[in-house]
Amino acid sequence: MLYFESDYTEGAHPEVLEALVKSNLEHLSGYGNDAYTESARAKIREAVGNPEASVEFLVGGTQTNRVVLSSILEEYEGVIAANSGHVSVHEAGAIESSGHKVITLPHTDGKLSAESVKGCLADFYADDNHDHMVFPGAVYISHPTEYGTLYTRRELEALYSVCREYGIPLYLDGARLAYALACPENDLSLEDIARLTDVFYIGATKCGALCGEAVVFKKAPKHFVTRVKQQGALLAKDRLLGVQLDALFTNGLYYRVGKNAIDTAMRLREILAENGYRFFVESFTNQQFVIVENSLAERLAQGVKYCFIEKYDDSHSVIRFVTSWATEMEDVEALNDIL
Amino acid sequence: MLYFESDYTEGAHPEVLEALVKSNLEHLSGYGNDAYTESARAKIREAVGNPEASVEFLVGGTQTNRVVLSSILEEYEGVIAANSGHVSVHEAGAIESSGHKVITLPHTDGKLSAESVKGCLADFYADDNHDHMVFPGAVYISHPTEYGTLYTRRELEALYSVCREYGIPLYLDGARLAYALACPENDLSLEDIARLTDVFYIGATKCGALCGEAVVFKKAPKHFVTRVKQQGALLAKDRLLGVQLDALFTNGLYYRVGKNAIDTAMRLREILAENGYRFFVESFTNQQFVIVENSLAERLAQGVKYCFIEKYDDSHSVIRFVTSWATEMEDVEALNDIL
Amino acid sequence: MLYFESDYTEGAHPEVLEALVKSNLEHLSGYGNDAYTESARAKIREAVGNPEASVEFLVGGTQTNRVVLSSILEEYEGVIAANSGHVSVHEAGAIESSGHKVITLPHTDGKLSAESVKGCLADFYADDNHDHMVFPGAVYISHPTEYGTLYTRRELEALYSVCREYGIPLYLDGARLAYALACPENDLSLEDIARLTDVFYIGATKCGALCGEAVVFKKAPKHFVTRVKQQGALLAKDRLLGVQLDALFTNGLYYRVGKNAIDTAMRLREILAENGYRFFVESFTNQQFVIVENSLAERLAQGVKYCFIEKYDDSHSVIRFVTSWATEMEDVEALNDIL
Amino acid sequence: MLYFESDYTEGAHPEVLEALVKSNLEHLSGYGNDAYTESARAKIREAVGNPEASVEFLVGGTQTNRVVLSSILEEYEGVIAANSGHVSVHEAGAIESSGHKVITLPHTDGKLSAESVKGCLADFYADDNHDHMVFPGAVYISHPTEYGTLYTRRELEALYSVCREYGIPLYLDGARLAYALACPENDLSLEDIARLTDVFYIGATKCGALCGEAVVFKKAPKHFVTRVKQQGALLAKDRLLGVQLDALFTNGLYYRVGKNAIDTAMRLREILAENGYRFFVESFTNQQFVIVENSLAERLAQGVKYCFIEKYDDSHSVIRFVTSWATEMEDVEALNDIL
Repeated sequence: MLYFESDYTEGAHPEVLEALVKSNLEHLSGYGNDAYTESARAKIREAVGNPEASVEFLVGGTQTNRVVLSSILEEYEGVIAANSGHVSVHEAGAIESSGHKVITLPHTDGKLSAESVKGCLADFYADDNHDHMVFPGAVYISHPTEYGTLYTRRELEALYSVCREYGIPLYLDGARLAYALACPENDLSLEDIARLTDVFYIGATKCGALCGEAVVFKKAPKHFVTRVKQQGALLAKDRLLGVQLDALFTNGLYYRVGKNAIDTAMRLREILAENGYRFFVESFTNQQFVIVENSLAERLAQGVKYCFIEKYDDSHSVIRFVTSWATEMEDVEALNDIL
Repeated sequence: MLYFESDYTEGAHPEVLEALVKSNLEHLSGYGNDAYTESARAKIREAVGNPEASVEFLVGGTQTNRVVLSSILEEYEGVIAANSGHVSVHEAGAIESSGHKVITLPHTDGKLSAESVKGCLADFYADDNHDHMVFPGAVYISHPTEYGTLYTRRELEALYSVCREYGIPLYLDGARLAYALACPENDLSLEDIARLTDVFYIGATKCGALCGEAVVFKKAPKHFVTRVKQQGALLAKDRLLGVQLDALFTNGLYYRVGKNAIDTAMRLREILAENGYRFFVESFTNQQFVIVENSLAERLAQGVKYCFIEKYDDSHSVIRFVTSWATEMEDVEALNDIL
Repeated sequence: MLYFESDYTEGAHPEVLEALVKSNLEHLSGYGNDAYTESARAKIREAVGNPEASVEFLVGGTQTNRVVLSSILEEYEGVIAANSGHVSVHEAGAIESSGHKVITLPHTDGKLSAESVKGCLADFYADDNHDHMVFPGAVYISHPTEYGTLYTRRELEALYSVCREYGIPLYLDGARLAYALACPENDLSLEDIARLTDVFYIGATKCGALCGEAVVFKKAPKHFVTRVKQQGALLAKDRLLGVQLDALFTNGLYYRVGKNAIDTAMRLREILAENGYRFFVESFTNQQFVIVENSLAERLAQGVKYCFIEKYDDSHSVIRFVTSWATEMEDVEALNDIL
Repeated sequence: MLYFESDYTEGAHPEVLEALVKSNLEHLSGYGNDAYTESARAKIREAVGNPEASVEFLVGGTQTNRVVLSSILEEYEGVIAANSGHVSVHEAGAIESSGHKVITLPHTDGKLSAESVKGCLADFYADDNHDHMVFPGAVYISHPTEYGTLYTRRELEALYSVCREYGIPLYLDGARLAYALACPENDLSLEDIARLTDVFYIGATKCGALCGEAVVFKKAPKHFVTRVKQQGALLAKDRLLGVQLDALFTNGLYYRVGKNAIDTAMRLREILAENGYRFFVESFTNQQFVIVENSLAERLAQGVKYCFIEKYDDSHSVIRFVTSWATEMEDVEALNDIL
């Protein structure tokens, strides 16, 4: 069986695991007050080019979205997101559960446009009844998106500019950020993202760690650690996050993690194209989406684990192949025989 | 420096870590659908003597209390707890944040008595105004308690009987359960606890794992995984919990973890007594509380890390020494020279 | 100036006001335990043809939607509504604030179709990932809708049948129910609605009272009064609701309230048609929507108060004229001169 | 039967009712944008001696406490209150339902002392673990208290000074404020209260209106009307509140309402004393609490409606007699024959 189901089917990148093993018996204070956490923070501040940034570690993506958004939204505000966004669809109502509406806008290949966000904000303030409506209090995007697509620097600048104009924060979900950063088509560096958002997170769970996400705030919400604790998101052994993130930002590991995924994904993409597969969306990152006949989908399932995404029409499905730091090129080549 | 500050200052027990290392490159499905998670569930069902029990894994203690309590309480209900309880004091309002009041009762050495709970329930229903008050919807206790003390089987039976009488669930927080189970003074087995509560958790974070708690329900709330996801508590790489809990319930490791802590704690207790220290509470588990003059506390701090608990009076403090699976007996003996 | 802005610009229907005046100095118990409240309940149970129904009084529409929906939804559930629905747009996020997502579907003239709801539910359960999504836990409709349109009995039967099939409650918001009941085109009696929904409310604020809505449950949620109190919706002088609702259900007042509004609205509709106005939607109730040039809208504003609804295109607007129990036919005729 | 059960067993003071009747058919905009609401605001700003104050109208007391507190607390904050406070006991968990803990302190005759609040705040910040606890974010008091007692100006100054020192708002619940203002023992004017709190409310439901409370903020929370709407507390026919509050602040009615209650309460107090009744607390306002043998309580119940408060001991109860604007002196004298 070949495995292209997702980027969280293996444990940690060996260098991350080794860091956990090496530090295991050190006596370290709990709740984020340890040397590894401090070191990871410093390395990330360096990597994002902002010595003033606040760097906080959380366990998983939905948790991070919930904690960050509830921290930056006022109680009468909601968050604007693509209707395909993770917060809109696949978080079991985590944002609403914290009291906030997800205000959805249509997407293009998973992306929100500055025009659409600006239109939403302008319409809201133009509506005489807006005091009876949910105030748009932040904008949520992901990079790469749910469909593996990327914002260009120009697009992000435009979005950020709209957010500046309306005085609301822009939040970028980087669950798979390593796979954007390592992608030749990507023109957004970590520094760019740190500059063009108010808060974003550098995903680790799907990029080489067992768990963990690093949230980077231009300016952290007051008493953030208490908010984290309140939502049940604070680890007693917070070293688990500190050590892993520290390892990921040592010797460029976060970039190397991304590179393997992109190299194998681009070869996979080539193979899919050569085999005449029809792409659902043009993705240059580690997720490749194709439209296949249902009968083909069933046949493929015997030799390769992929992910079913959605029904395309009565006889076709959209399926997804995913690579990661753990994908081996020979498995990609082996896929060639199956397709 | 000697380390007796807490039971979460080291990483994982070597056997737990080894299990993570060994399984690291296996391809496993996410979100709790992997073989290790299934194996851990089966071993725990066996250990608690209830083949019908539902076993669910969460990341940390506060998260577990928040997710479990919000799952078993109706929106008009609160939870009865000792005023010293973790949910009452040290969870940054996690329970209230999920909409529920913590109804506090006085404690004795950290414990709630059946009489006191029964009185609270009887008074509530006798009050003609109770429709304008928070309905007591569950009882929360911890074993060992915040003060390291233990419920006897008779006490737990009495509490459970009151809960049965009023039709509300009894929930036991076992963050340090390994340290109760290994304690000769403890007369409550895992089977007893599983029988005499409606839901409890077997703590792993403080008992040998990097993170993780195993919740054992007699009957799981409907759609529990969705509730977990909604609160940001579901791990993509849930194997992290499954593998660790599986290791802890292999070859009696969970009991061995407890035994080392108790052996060292009992020797520590002996040494404290020999040195004329005054105990704040009589504890037979891995936490030992003593009342010391402030000047002594300061002097001790130069050679040993302990935990300040609370002011006793103007010139005295309550401090705590904690042992764990990682404590070495020679460090306890070394403490003798400092005290 | 003529007033067609809304159906809440006057106080109470004279018979309602008189009932308040007459009962004013009677000593009545608070919190809904008075004879008027009991009488109103009995009359409504009679009117809806269900002696087993639970009838509860709340103050306003948004409050009612929030209290009812949070009472019937589990914490992992959301409510399906038209994207034009009051709960979707004009309640400032009241539903989300209580922790629940509003799952929106496209509408036709403000209405949800059974097909669309069934499709949504079928798709949800067909999605392997649905445990990571918000469970659809109820369906919300309004009758008349936001656009003044009406469900037919056949349509309501179809919706209710889908709800029965999936085991979720159907909730009907009757903020303007009097204006449906008095409408010749309406084929849904109070008895039909009580039979074909699980819970609905009979609006009074917009139908002759100063405030108040009567919620009719087939089976009331447990401890409903406590839920009401918790949300700050319980009146000490609950007689204020009981007396008014009692008056509205005495001598057919609720129907007479509706009749005046419909009679004047139908004449208004005739006049609009005669004057060549273009209708935005075909409404047979007390709200009439027309599309006008912006310059005309401005001119009209000098002689009549209407309600701006939305931009139609760059040069046209949708505006609304509303009648009520208080509208006088001569004002409608006077409007003829202005249009 | 004589009626001394509570101050909400009659409707509105005749002058309030008359104002509703007179204005009934005026066309007024909804949602608080009407002339009566503006007039009431102006009169209250005048009465409290602060032309900059924000005055907002809500429907009932629990609603007001919930909306105000959730507006002034950050999500990681709770409110300090007496353990006898209305928010602590009799609001069905309304505050917790909005996500905030009520941090209770012991009371003296229903009052919080500045020393006790200061001690709580000092202890909190002195605790190294306070990041894991609920931040005290506001102080809640009521005047008169639940026991009818009054803060002195000196006491309120001291409380406000502690709040200033710690930078948290002081909130005063004035559900029965009229009965304090008319009391000779009271030395706190409306101006004093407006100066010595950050926000308070002037109760109307229990002081002559059918419903309604006037919240007075030194500085209103941003988008307060949206917060009100979100919690289901905004009335379409907000005139109902505006007209009533306007009437209560016309010709000194609010003070006259209080005066009748105090005059009758003081005579009642005299009679109770003359008859040898033992007071539970010394109250100079409209609530009088006495400790009676249970058999006496039963006998009294045949001729007079009073309110049972709590069990005093096995053979005694605390009961309460309440006067209001509607109490007639002859009923008080008639009580003399029964006692």
